[in-house]
Amino acid sequence: MELLIKNATAVTMDDANPVLHNAYIGVDQGKICWLSQQPPEEAASRTIDGAGKLAMPGLINAHTHLPMTLLRGYADDYALQEWLNDHIFPAEAKLDARCVRAGAALAVAECLRFGVSSVTDMYFQLPVIAETCFQAGIKANLCNAGMSFDPEHYDFEQAGETLETREALKTWHMADNGRIRVDAGVHAEYTSFPALWRAEAEFAREHGLNMHLHLSETRKEHEECLARWGKTPTQVLAEQGLLDVRTTAAHGVWISEQDMELLAQKGAAVAHNPVSNLKLASGIAPVAKMLEKGVKVALGTDGMASNNNHDLFEEIKLCAILQKGISGDPQALPAWQALCCATRGGAYAQGREQECGALRLGMDADLILLDASVPSMQPAHNPISSLCYSASGRDVKLTMVRGKILYENGEFYTIDLEKTLYEIQNYALPRILER
Amino acid sequence: MELLIKNATAVTMDDANPVLHNAYIGVDQGKICWLSQQPPEEAASRTIDGAGKLAMPGLINAHTHLPMTLLRGYADDYALQEWLNDHIFPAEAKLDARCVRAGAALAVAECLRFGVSSVTDMYFQLPVIAETCFQAGIKANLCNAGMSFDPEHYDFEQAGETLETREALKTWHMADNGRIRVDAGVHAEYTSFPALWRAEAEFAREHGLNMHLHLSETRKEHEECLARWGKTPTQVLAEQGLLDVRTTAAHGVWISEQDMELLAQKGAAVAHNPVSNLKLASGIAPVAKMLEKGVKVALGTDGMASNNNHDLFEEIKLCAILQKGISGDPQALPAWQALCCATRGGAYAQGREQECGALRLGMDADLILLDASVPSMQPAHNPISSLCYSASGRDVKLTMVRGKILYENGEFYTIDLEKTLYEIQNYALPRILER
Repeated sequence: MELLIKNATAVTMDDANPVLHNAYIGVDQGKICWLSQQPPEEAASRTIDGAGKLAMPGLINAHTHLPMTLLRGYADDYALQEWLNDHIFPAEAKLDARCVRAGAALAVAECLRFGVSSVTDMYFQLPVIAETCFQAGIKANLCNAGMSFDPEHYDFEQAGETLETREALKTWHMADNGRIRVDAGVHAEYTSFPALWRAEAEFAREHGLNMHLHLSETRKEHEECLARWGKTPTQVLAEQGLLDVRTTAAHGVWISEQDMELLAQKGAAVAHNPVSNLKLASGIAPVAKMLEKGVKVALGTDGMASNNNHDLFEEIKLCAILQKGISGDPQALPAWQALCCATRGGAYAQGREQECGALRLGMDADLILLDASVPSMQPAHNPISSLCYSASGRDVKLTMVRGKILYENGEFYTIDLEKTLYEIQNYALPRILER
Repeated sequence: MELLIKNATAVTMDDANPVLHNAYIGVDQGKICWLSQQPPEEAASRTIDGAGKLAMPGLINAHTHLPMTLLRGYADDYALQEWLNDHIFPAEAKLDARCVRAGAALAVAECLRFGVSSVTDMYFQLPVIAETCFQAGIKANLCNAGMSFDPEHYDFEQAGETLETREALKTWHMADNGRIRVDAGVHAEYTSFPALWRAEAEFAREHGLNMHLHLSETRKEHEECLARWGKTPTQVLAEQGLLDVRTTAAHGVWISEQDMELLAQKGAAVAHNPVSNLKLASGIAPVAKMLEKGVKVALGTDGMASNNNHDLFEEIKLCAILQKGISGDPQALPAWQALCCATRGGAYAQGREQECGALRLGMDADLILLDASVPSMQPAHNPISSLCYSASGRDVKLTMVRGKILYENGEFYTIDLEKTLYEIQNYALPRILER
């Protein structure tokens, strides 16, 4: 076999065998070929000593906007409309392909450094983002979402999003045996209309694509939809067929119990973004209730203007503790469940549940190692608790996707970080900041 | 001068000069002797290149229980009474001085690694904790809080807490020119009674000590006090003189607006512990309202059984975003205010506001350097945003207290971490885990 990790404490995220102490994890041809407390007989080309380390599946960031990393800390603590209209939208209007490439590369480096092996992204310049992810070796589900305020003159075939998506479909969809996937997308109910939704739903069905959308992120959006259509965003979009393929609905802060039942019945996943929902003052999504109702829940960071980092471990911890804090029940959303959201939940949302999200024989070797010897992880009474409540993305020492090590001890093997930062400083930022 | 940091971006937490780019920070005899964008004329014995780094005052953890670090992850996701009665209290009953020493040393190492230069602690074996902090070089306000369920037989002078406090007062109070301070303490309203409060208040006045206590942490505690006394815990304790010295009240989740006014009038500080309050399902403290009412707010991690790490940057971010999320106002508790809580607020709570909490000429050189060149801190549009929303304690590269570097790039200069972990593995844990 190509690689053997020995003596690690593995939190497999597999119900059958959740924690394996002194685990041997073998990797060959991109897959997990050995997972046991016994050493394999076969020799390995490389052996990594996992003593003092925690191994777990790579995390899956089920909702972000990678190139917005260029706007990290650019405009915080503003009122929402001022934030969008006076700061974020004008800055985004200046982003060309070269900016997007640099911003996405920085974001992917940050994801890999924090143990994220797969991302779901929604942004323009889709083919550029796809190429960046392809080269970086990360898994990615990518879309440029349909959005229009002009139903009179809307032409699905000529819309910028459709043109980009068709181009990305041709060049990048299922690239590297499905490592890169192109999804269909609708930005949100309040930024589009039925003709767009029907066209997008049909497009997804026709090409066998997943769907990604924003759903009931703010109270205003949810209530205005009720006023407009007499129905919730979930109901309206479901009626137009947008939940008939594997769908990730980001946020879901204001969805009703009936919405949850509908999402569960349709097999849609909700990407929960607790940091962003708090920071933008959107509220707290009822994810404990969603899980109770059978909705699949994944975790996301959202874009860097509303977070401001890609550390999914922050979302895991916040997911677990927020549900306790608002319910008065310290047993709400235990550590294991929060970790499931960040791994198996994300894999399901991406349509990759057969492929990753757990350490299991035959699955892709998407895994990470964390340093459990640091003071903040000691003593280690319970590795599941450690990963949920004590860990940080900064504790990650190695990130592997399909058996390929992409990040290890401060080194990025597929991204030239120095060049990326130079490009951001010398090209992207001057462009964004020019008046 | 002894030390010069050059080219750092300094977030001083001083209103007069909040951010200083390309700053020169000079340190001599434990004090900040130079702070300017101009280099000093005087040469320095050692120069540190601060390029790509953020400098700020050391963080102040205003409420923790250091030795409980031994119980990190020991019993998570239980109901409160089961957690306390079946897990935490039985484990704590087994902790002897040797356990406490090892647990406190590990905790202090973690604090220093995460940029905490001063802690406020409440726990038994007070003299042992004081000695540990004294040796580690960290600043500390330490108490063993009065607690008794037996008013009939209560004798303040013979209570274990009083004996420990008197011993610590003799040996450790104001040690190293006030680096170590012994505080008076009352555990909480629901764990004691008026005779104890009066004695403790009198003791604090007599010795010129600060006061530390738990206040309205849970709804149950707050409402049972109302039922018992017809008054809130704040009112009851204030009436007995417990707020007449500089007081830190931990939590304050359920305090009323009148309580806030009383706390503000008395000049008491509230130590806000957002992670612990969520994890134990206590709720969310109304700190934006407290600040509006003039209450001084500091931040704490609480003990490691209810967090589970000492990374105060998590509390800073959560403090800022929680208040937005629950109020619907994205401008609530901006980044600067959250950072103030963790620095100036903490210094005030400890009675050290003349001494630390900001980078200012003549103040103690309690400062930290963070690596701002990591992907998650780039680009750096706004250093205040970076520190509040993007940073982690793991980004800290150097922690200095009174000009003495205690932690630097993975090295602890005053704590033998390996020996401490050995002691925990081989003495403390077997003792805790024995049946």
